[in-house]
Amino acid sequence: MRMVDVIEKKRDGKELTPEEINYFVEGYTDGSIPDYQASALTMAIFFQGMSERERADLTMSMVQSGDQIDLSAIEGVKVDKHSTGGVGDTTTLVLGPLVAAVGVPVAKMSGRGLGHTGGTIDKLEAVPGFHVEIDNDEFTRLVNENKIAVIGQSGNLTPADKKLYSLRDVTATVNSIPLIASSIMSKKIAAGADAVVLDVKTGAGAFMKELGDSQELAQAMVNIGNNVGRRTMAVISDMSQPLGFAIGNALEVKEAIDTLKGEGPEDLTELCLTLGSHMVYLAGKAATLEQAREKLVSVIKDGSALNSFKLFLKSQGGDESVVDEPEKLPKAAHVLELEAKEDGYVSEIIADAVGTAAMWLGAGRATKESEIDLAVGLELRKKIGDKVQKGESLVTIHSNSEDIADVKNKLYESIKVTKNKVDAPVLIHGEIKETK
Amino acid sequence: MRMVDVIEKKRDGKELTPEEINYFVEGYTDGSIPDYQASALTMAIFFQGMSERERADLTMSMVQSGDQIDLSAIEGVKVDKHSTGGVGDTTTLVLGPLVAAVGVPVAKMSGRGLGHTGGTIDKLEAVPGFHVEIDNDEFTRLVNENKIAVIGQSGNLTPADKKLYSLRDVTATVNSIPLIASSIMSKKIAAGADAVVLDVKTGAGAFMKELGDSQELAQAMVNIGNNVGRRTMAVISDMSQPLGFAIGNALEVKEAIDTLKGEGPEDLTELCLTLGSHMVYLAGKAATLEQAREKLVSVIKDGSALNSFKLFLKSQGGDESVVDEPEKLPKAAHVLELEAKEDGYVSEIIADAVGTAAMWLGAGRATKESEIDLAVGLELRKKIGDKVQKGESLVTIHSNSEDIADVKNKLYESIKVTKNKVDAPVLIHGEIKETK
Repeated sequence: MRMVDVIEKKRDGKELTPEEINYFVEGYTDGSIPDYQASALTMAIFFQGMSERERADLTMSMVQSGDQIDLSAIEGVKVDKHSTGGVGDTTTLVLGPLVAAVGVPVAKMSGRGLGHTGGTIDKLEAVPGFHVEIDNDEFTRLVNENKIAVIGQSGNLTPADKKLYSLRDVTATVNSIPLIASSIMSKKIAAGADAVVLDVKTGAGAFMKELGDSQELAQAMVNIGNNVGRRTMAVISDMSQPLGFAIGNALEVKEAIDTLKGEGPEDLTELCLTLGSHMVYLAGKAATLEQAREKLVSVIKDGSALNSFKLFLKSQGGDESVVDEPEKLPKAAHVLELEAKEDGYVSEIIADAVGTAAMWLGAGRATKESEIDLAVGLELRKKIGDKVQKGESLVTIHSNSEDIADVKNKLYESIKVTKNKVDAPVLIHGEIKETK
Repeated sequence: MRMVDVIEKKRDGKELTPEEINYFVEGYTDGSIPDYQASALTMAIFFQGMSERERADLTMSMVQSGDQIDLSAIEGVKVDKHSTGGVGDTTTLVLGPLVAAVGVPVAKMSGRGLGHTGGTIDKLEAVPGFHVEIDNDEFTRLVNENKIAVIGQSGNLTPADKKLYSLRDVTATVNSIPLIASSIMSKKIAAGADAVVLDVKTGAGAFMKELGDSQELAQAMVNIGNNVGRRTMAVISDMSQPLGFAIGNALEVKEAIDTLKGEGPEDLTELCLTLGSHMVYLAGKAATLEQAREKLVSVIKDGSALNSFKLFLKSQGGDESVVDEPEKLPKAAHVLELEAKEDGYVSEIIADAVGTAAMWLGAGRATKESEIDLAVGLELRKKIGDKVQKGESLVTIHSNSEDIADVKNKLYESIKVTKNKVDAPVLIHGEIKETK
């Protein structure tokens, strides 16, 4: 087999065989196929697309390119959740304890990463003492006992995807649905998921800004998952503004606690119940999505969701008393209000820009070397559609620096107020069911 | 400027600026832009094409990527001829002396290269003593005195094109009209041509097998030439079968001599008169193509074309007596006939396959290291449309080996004879005039 023939075949719109896809993925991983042929192929895929079959084969070839996590020692159906990313997305912190409380095993492997705020591990480290340095046996034991544990990412998962993603990033081939979908699904499957619930964001603050594109990506991932034997469903949720109120590590832990108590922001609560229902349903802990939702509502009401969170923190060295006394979480030196300059209705909150403002405060990493300040961040006081009076707070700013003129300007630019009444955006734009 | 943005712009079908094109060509030549970005861009160009303006800019950027030959010391309009390549194409050997005889300066820089037979220099070296090791001053003097000289390729011409072509070859992006057209035109312009006549081949033995593609390529090159200030015209000629009768180095020299005497194959003679008329016209030596043709016919008739060839050979150390005594050219040990197995009409002569048979005899180089045997080759005795009787010779084989069963089988496979009468193919499929 010659790589140039594989490229030409795809260039001419023909379907690649499983052998051809595997030849490419293996060869690219071991270096026998050079970057310049891989980039030509991905550009051809950008234009010609991939069939359902090709997407499933590409996904599984990438899974097989590296280590695969074996979660078989953990009882029950391991359902993983994946979000395509947004601003102020506290769902992972809420969902873990929430579905664990109804018996769904949450065996979470997580990372740090770049962004507006830290990753899940960074956020949890806002709880004094909490750590993820546990070994695999401990991890398995904790999930079996408590139904929830988090461990740091280890092993060489999907090296083909890592290498290909870096290449796509510099060759203008990121934005291809088959490649995005296979990339995400390969990582979930290599991490040991039996079933996957996808939260595909849509709107100005999302990677996919158009609803049509988000639907297409969601459908593509659901099809791949079901075609490779992993029950998969997707929810398409709004990211035209940040989710919830909090953007920042300790602030999001506090918001997660509120939500587990039933006192969280309306949109965050609703999205967690929606995604959680899908997780409970796919884990076989409820016969319908409606029953699953009822179970989740009930564990919030009776306090067992909150207890699940406490148990989880304590088991990994964390001070679980923060749940009842959140003032023990890291606090910023300065708390300031961003006052509205006029009366009206909030018409726009540019999520990316608000996230950037939080990063400037120190809530997230701009580069791998950046230090995160767990205490700082933003709390939105108004969301799209809310009425606002001149002088009222739009955002509470938690900062360890007094010089935050840039942050304030950025926020004023990002939050638009109009005279006319504005409707709040729809939160759930759609759900994609299993295809098999 | 970032290369990834340039790729994305082309990927999305937008026109690149001259600065963006030059940024790419310069950066790719000096190695600051890696192969993997270049291949992504060329694949995007494959799908999105290039505007007239982009093609001209790409051509001139590639010209400027290396040395440019200065022919200003040579008097008159330097017209170069380029053929897109075929089998048994003896036109260069004929055209040089032919147009020189009417006063068109022929300052030919030529190479060896791979293929079914050698390059122009290899062929000329079949003439005892002939050599191209002359310096630039001698070259200039000879062209000014005799109107014709050939020199070996020197200097670092269009390194961007060389590097890009090697990359396209292994990334399935050879077959893109804007890239092919800019590649060819950049080489001609860097070699110092004031004007260019293109012989674009079409048919089974050509790079472009479909007439529509050949026309598109011819038009693309004519437009580039005229857009960058080089008067350019094109002829689209048939390569559904080999041109002329001879395929082989000494055999083609002999055929060129016959043609310059007015005794050559009909198709080769006609194509040389057509291409030659364009060269004479663009050199300003005739007011119309018709007048140009008359001049060429007259220099064949009065023997001055043949004298021009003798003078050319002698000036570069060659034994010009071969023109009158062609038996002095290298001769193969064995001369065999390929006999027709049945009565009928020749319906097909697969040019590529016939060329391969010639290469097997040793007429051409399969790899850079191969030695050429100047004496060997093929003489077609029949062409498409010719009547043939069982036992008549289809091809005369000149070989230095007795074991040529493979060659004979290849030829039998390549030459089809049918019962029904077949028309000879049209030779000239079209001409593309200057666009300015």
